[in-house]
Amino acid sequence: MSEALIRQRVAALAKAICAKDTDGVASLYAADIVSFDINPPLRYGGANNKRRAWEEFFAAHTGPVVYEVHELNVTTHGELAFACSLNHVTGTVAGGRRTDLWLRWTACFRRLDGRWLVVHDHASVPADLEHGRAVLNLTP
Amino acid sequence: MSEALIRQRVAALAKAICAKDTDGVASLYAADIVSFDINPPLRYGGANNKRRAWEEFFAAHTGPVVYEVHELNVTTHGELAFACSLNHVTGTVAGGRRTDLWLRWTACFRRLDGRWLVVHDHASVPADLEHGRAVLNLTP
Repeated sequence: MSEALIRQRVAALAKAICAKDTDGVASLYAADIVSFDINPPLRYGGANNKRRAWEEFFAAHTGPVVYEVHELNVTTHGELAFACSLNHVTGTVAGGRRTDLWLRWTACFRRLDGRWLVVHDHASVPADLEHGRAVLNLTP
Repeated sequence: MSEALIRQRVAALAKAICAKDTDGVASLYAADIVSFDINPPLRYGGANNKRRAWEEFFAAHTGPVVYEVHELNVTTHGELAFACSLNHVTGTVAGGRRTDLWLRWTACFRRLDGRWLVVHDHASVPADLEHGRAVLNLTP
């Protein structure tokens, strides 16, 4: 039953991203979330900074955003849960650059006052360390 | 008490990496681990592939490897736990290229038959999506 709730939360997140609904997205995060995001810095903390990162993402995308969660894997027990998936993000940023990216996403949830909130998340693409490149053209 | 056990497991992992002890490292992973690793591919599965990735890492490093876990954050409840940290990796690879890298590390644990094993891990550096670069020069 917890797994179904987590899956609902993840589906709601994806829907909120596609709608550029900052409040909807932000409602998923615990106040003291620790985030390892796809962009620098290495890590940041707090739901307010998470909200700001999404606001920047939405502002940068001049057209529609499509955010799909694939291969979602959920593990729950008691009041903890973690989820991982491969997420497909497509859209167009200012200047016309097209985004078409598969990223790896891990989210760690805790049930706080009856609500499942993300206390830690991690989003990334693989790196080619030798050449200093982000590897952006991979698909599942 | 679970948190102390997880911290011991993470310390043992770091020690095994520094010793290039493949068996020691591999003893941490569940057979069906799902890994989002720092190198391509997007994800891979299974303790055998995880072992192979470490064997390649150890073989690539001709000199000593130093692997330090910083700012470790552990959350546990019942039979699940998750940990996140900023890990500092230094070493020298064949050809003399020096590695000095801070990576973000997330590990999701499950207690299986009384042993805490990593069922999912995620290691990365941030990406500069606009320029296709891995951002390798960040420090906490």
